[in-house]
Amino acid sequence: MTKPLVSPALTQFVAATNGRNMTQAAYVAVMTGLAMMILLTVDPAYNALHHWVDALLWACLAFFVFEWVVRLRQARLTDRVWDYVLSVRGLVDAAGALAVPLALAFGVTPKTAWLLGILWLLKVLPGIRGLRQLRRVLVQESGPLLSVLVIFLLVLFLASVAVYFLERDVQPATFGNIPAALWWAVATLTTTGYGDVVPITPLGRLVAAFVMICGLGVFGLWTGILATGFAAETRRDNFLKTWESVSKVPFFAALGPAAIADVTHMLRTMDLPSRTMIIRKGQAGDCMYFIAEGEVEVDLPGKKVKLGEGAFFGEMALLGNNLRSANIATTRVSKLLVLDLVDFRVLMARHPDLSQTIDAEAKRRELENQ
Amino acid sequence: MTKPLVSPALTQFVAATNGRNMTQAAYVAVMTGLAMMILLTVDPAYNALHHWVDALLWACLAFFVFEWVVRLRQARLTDRVWDYVLSVRGLVDAAGALAVPLALAFGVTPKTAWLLGILWLLKVLPGIRGLRQLRRVLVQESGPLLSVLVIFLLVLFLASVAVYFLERDVQPATFGNIPAALWWAVATLTTTGYGDVVPITPLGRLVAAFVMICGLGVFGLWTGILATGFAAETRRDNFLKTWESVSKVPFFAALGPAAIADVTHMLRTMDLPSRTMIIRKGQAGDCMYFIAEGEVEVDLPGKKVKLGEGAFFGEMALLGNNLRSANIATTRVSKLLVLDLVDFRVLMARHPDLSQTIDAEAKRRELENQ
Amino acid sequence: MTKPLVSPALTQFVAATNGRNMTQAAYVAVMTGLAMMILLTVDPAYNALHHWVDALLWACLAFFVFEWVVRLRQARLTDRVWDYVLSVRGLVDAAGALAVPLALAFGVTPKTAWLLGILWLLKVLPGIRGLRQLRRVLVQESGPLLSVLVIFLLVLFLASVAVYFLERDVQPATFGNIPAALWWAVATLTTTGYGDVVPITPLGRLVAAFVMICGLGVFGLWTGILATGFAAETRRDNFLKTWESVSKVPFFAALGPAAIADVTHMLRTMDLPSRTMIIRKGQAGDCMYFIAEGEVEVDLPGKKVKLGEGAFFGEMALLGNNLRSANIATTRVSKLLVLDLVDFRVLMARHPDLSQTIDAEAKRRELENQ
Amino acid sequence: MTKPLVSPALTQFVAATNGRNMTQAAYVAVMTGLAMMILLTVDPAYNALHHWVDALLWACLAFFVFEWVVRLRQARLTDRVWDYVLSVRGLVDAAGALAVPLALAFGVTPKTAWLLGILWLLKVLPGIRGLRQLRRVLVQESGPLLSVLVIFLLVLFLASVAVYFLERDVQPATFGNIPAALWWAVATLTTTGYGDVVPITPLGRLVAAFVMICGLGVFGLWTGILATGFAAETRRDNFLKTWESVSKVPFFAALGPAAIADVTHMLRTMDLPSRTMIIRKGQAGDCMYFIAEGEVEVDLPGKKVKLGEGAFFGEMALLGNNLRSANIATTRVSKLLVLDLVDFRVLMARHPDLSQTIDAEAKRRELENQ
Repeated sequence: MTKPLVSPALTQFVAATNGRNMTQAAYVAVMTGLAMMILLTVDPAYNALHHWVDALLWACLAFFVFEWVVRLRQARLTDRVWDYVLSVRGLVDAAGALAVPLALAFGVTPKTAWLLGILWLLKVLPGIRGLRQLRRVLVQESGPLLSVLVIFLLVLFLASVAVYFLERDVQPATFGNIPAALWWAVATLTTTGYGDVVPITPLGRLVAAFVMICGLGVFGLWTGILATGFAAETRRDNFLKTWESVSKVPFFAALGPAAIADVTHMLRTMDLPSRTMIIRKGQAGDCMYFIAEGEVEVDLPGKKVKLGEGAFFGEMALLGNNLRSANIATTRVSKLLVLDLVDFRVLMARHPDLSQTIDAEAKRRELENQ
Repeated sequence: MTKPLVSPALTQFVAATNGRNMTQAAYVAVMTGLAMMILLTVDPAYNALHHWVDALLWACLAFFVFEWVVRLRQARLTDRVWDYVLSVRGLVDAAGALAVPLALAFGVTPKTAWLLGILWLLKVLPGIRGLRQLRRVLVQESGPLLSVLVIFLLVLFLASVAVYFLERDVQPATFGNIPAALWWAVATLTTTGYGDVVPITPLGRLVAAFVMICGLGVFGLWTGILATGFAAETRRDNFLKTWESVSKVPFFAALGPAAIADVTHMLRTMDLPSRTMIIRKGQAGDCMYFIAEGEVEVDLPGKKVKLGEGAFFGEMALLGNNLRSANIATTRVSKLLVLDLVDFRVLMARHPDLSQTIDAEAKRRELENQ
Repeated sequence: MTKPLVSPALTQFVAATNGRNMTQAAYVAVMTGLAMMILLTVDPAYNALHHWVDALLWACLAFFVFEWVVRLRQARLTDRVWDYVLSVRGLVDAAGALAVPLALAFGVTPKTAWLLGILWLLKVLPGIRGLRQLRRVLVQESGPLLSVLVIFLLVLFLASVAVYFLERDVQPATFGNIPAALWWAVATLTTTGYGDVVPITPLGRLVAAFVMICGLGVFGLWTGILATGFAAETRRDNFLKTWESVSKVPFFAALGPAAIADVTHMLRTMDLPSRTMIIRKGQAGDCMYFIAEGEVEVDLPGKKVKLGEGAFFGEMALLGNNLRSANIATTRVSKLLVLDLVDFRVLMARHPDLSQTIDAEAKRRELENQ
Repeated sequence: MTKPLVSPALTQFVAATNGRNMTQAAYVAVMTGLAMMILLTVDPAYNALHHWVDALLWACLAFFVFEWVVRLRQARLTDRVWDYVLSVRGLVDAAGALAVPLALAFGVTPKTAWLLGILWLLKVLPGIRGLRQLRRVLVQESGPLLSVLVIFLLVLFLASVAVYFLERDVQPATFGNIPAALWWAVATLTTTGYGDVVPITPLGRLVAAFVMICGLGVFGLWTGILATGFAAETRRDNFLKTWESVSKVPFFAALGPAAIADVTHMLRTMDLPSRTMIIRKGQAGDCMYFIAEGEVEVDLPGKKVKLGEGAFFGEMALLGNNLRSANIATTRVSKLLVLDLVDFRVLMARHPDLSQTIDAEAKRRELENQ
């Protein structure tokens, strides 16, 4: 191992980027690189600033090459070089590090070669939260979505042949062949409607009108399918995130498993960083909180009370007292379970014992805080 | 306190505008100001009417300055000057009052300075009902919505670099740099399709077709997410509004808490102004009403019966007699709970005792009214 | 009464049009009138056919005048002249009968006067099924829909003032005043994108890009709200239509009221004209039918069996035998309740006694038909 | 029977295409034919390759004629010639086989005659999965969808007459007759917005703005209706597909029919080809599988275990052990029932006996595999 090449401090710095979220530095590099690449194509701006633009582009490239090298090295340390190289992340890193230099090496002009910097943008992909959820919806609903796509293509081809047949003699320049008619059809069926190629014969326009209305229909089908998929996925996602946490709250331990499944559907998980204000004194409150992980601090007059895992707070706002009576903030990274007023009512109605526990605790606290 | 400056009557008048809804006067001022501002830019109209336009603009400005001053003064009376000044409302009021005068003071031409009158439009924001509901949906669904936005931007940048590369040599005037390509991409991906910048190479058109279809997909995802969010929010909103009122109706008091939560999901709250006709004789009826607040007057032949809080009416139409038998109108601002025929049937089936109470009352009324 | 003016036969003929659905004749007249009105504006066609076009237009007008007169007369017979005249239907009839003659009388040129024939189109409105359902959704969701509309208008005005400010010096011809900018903004925010007015400054394009993305958002919100509303309305509508019919089927009489509400949610009502084939022999079947009104005829080999109100059929396809074994058609106008395979399974699981009744009947029929 | 005409091998080959899915060969022929037909219209490409293009077109045509003849012959063998000829499939086959030759025979120029090859595209229709589901949604929701269509047409006609009236004097070339105005209206109402015909008078633009906003509304309604329909259809479809399979899994036999209906709503059917990897060792797992048909092979260290119909696997990932512990692949075409983690939890909570069976089996397997 050639440790001298990369100093331990730098290794550590890059190691931090191996998590799920890209480090801030990488984001900054991507943004800077992209901005410079765009600037490169704007002649007046580039002529005025070309030293800066070039310097920043090379700096970004250096960063990405460096990042890739360090990650490769780390992968070698854990004997997973090929795993990394062939993973999506590894391929994106390699593309970001190698595409521009290779293009330059093969004699592509710099103005064109730097365009490959657009590949750096792919590095933000793993950082997008909710992407997994989107993908699941697309996979689950792929059947009907594909059907709609096939129908879309069918209408596209039928319409473009029809319009080609009807318009080719009148507008040989724009409807002179089927690919040109396809271009018109896709712009029309998606309701984009550039207007660069437009039928002018009565029959051609009739076909076009039909295509536009089909466009609305395709939209509607597509959206309907996705809306259905999202409703299911949102419910599922929330359940999975919440289930783990519910079991950690002693308050719910008394419930049987059927009731816990019930409760889990009602709760929402909230991940909070340290020192975040959750409840602000004097605001109207419409939910209560259970602490699944972490700790919060209640800012009572004259003293500060800390509540740890398993405790709950904010219940007074739901028991008639409509305004929050104290500031409450997290002291460290915390995971809270939120129970909405609506569900609180339903839950208390179904499980009177829970209702009593909360009432008793609320009264104890009120006495204590007087 | 310098009371002489603002007369008590005026203070009272403006005080009324401190509620949730802007007064009619402020709405009129906003509309007038906006209309005049638009007229100012239409040369023929302005030349003909410039005295009127100028006078009305200054009058509107005077109104907003006055409104702001009075509100500031009121805030001082309750020692909350900074609370008001830094609140959204305070900032909007200040912008409406100060933007135009400041611009004029700094030597901006009147034609440009008055354009800042568009800020007056922001004053209608707090008056929009349902805005809170919209905001909650956007907040709750911000995760997936942001993911879609990032995907949108990703496609935008990738497509514009690709099309720039493919079209720059053929159309240097319109695709000469990436910002121009981005302009094309955003108009295409949103399916707006101005048609001022259009790819003409076969490959460029292929990319464009792909971008358009992605546009449909982005639309669909966005809509699917929002539809899911709205379904949840509508249910929640209705429950919260209704819960408070249900407890005030003695009719439901006999039900246990679980059943009340059940009933609450079925009822819809309706806020009515005074002297509003609720039921018109002879119409077909498909819901019954409970009075949560206020009073209604039943216009029976020969006499008028008043029903107060806790009473119900309209049940006969649900018990077989399909047409409303009397006019019923509110006598003052009232809050009614509406029970749809569908839910009436389900509710009566589940709670036979309620069914009997309603039957008995309906029979009593029929006897009485003979 | 001046009976001689209108012959009884004609009165009877028109009386038939007083129902909910316009008679075929009126539809034909509307279509013909509209087609002729369109033809009137197409110079070459009109020059060639002007005798025919004029004759048909006058004929249609005569029909509508006649229809209106007869309806007025009928209303007089029942002393409801003003009820009819001021009803939506009456106003539409009057407009259809009077608009064109009045315009001609006031000296409007025929080519323009006949354009008012477009009002005839309004006569189809009462005939649209499902319109009531659409209206209910719009009313129920009017709150959030209006909020979205206000946001739409807000973005519209803010964007057009911004773009007017940014583009007026560069494109005085197209962005010379705010109304012109508003025209651009509405075409952009609705993602129509004519392209006749397009910003060309970088900042103007940035604002435009923002407006387009807002357009997607407005679309999404609008659709989300309507989708939510429709889901609720569809469920409600089906329940109401079905409830009445369920009580007429003795088969369900054994169920308690809670179960009936349950069953009602599962059934779908189907109104069929006389002599309609419901089941075709040899087809795959996935639902069974209950007869709420009317009669069906089962075409068994060698004999025809009639089933009347309260009977059920098609159950064999659900009990394992996947293909329909006989043709079944209505003998007169009938109302059927359809039970889907999915719900059949759930229903049979919940109510084993129903299951036995159906099994017994199915076996009896099989024996009989051997 | 004239067997010599078609060899048995060929008959067999075509027989395979009589199933629900077109054979690969037919797909290839459709794609090739379509590509050649498009190439035929592109002059430079056709001039260069005309021998190839012509040859391939004739080859495709020959294939479709051959396919049709063989199918006709097979239909004759089973005495169903007319059934086949008049079925959708038969008509499509006939059109594909006869349209081009007939056109050529009637003296149509080859360039035009071959355009009829677009009819070959219809042959892919029966192969689209989910088409039946789409059709059912369209049928079920046809009522409200038609209402929206009628409203669409109403707005279309009203708007085009209004704009024709307002613009005909200013733009006689583009708004000179109502068909031209209709063309504008349809492009606007669908938010396509070509921009070839655009109103320029203030009132005309006001009407246009209204039409665009209506366009958004129509979109929203359409989508809302389809989304509602899809949600219902997806649930129904899944239930039907799953119900058959559930009864084959002995594991669920212990449940009563009500619970089985319950379970069926939770399971998802998955059809897998032979030799497909279902579970990959080391991945995170969030579902378990029941084998309804087929067989899987578990790749344990040192041995391979086969699981047949009725067995389940993947349960360990749901019982705390979050990572899959072995590769599992199908050995032949299999139908699996997937139980999501969410539903697994709910199911186990409701049916403790199932929970014990799974626990016991999981423990037995763990002991065995040590």
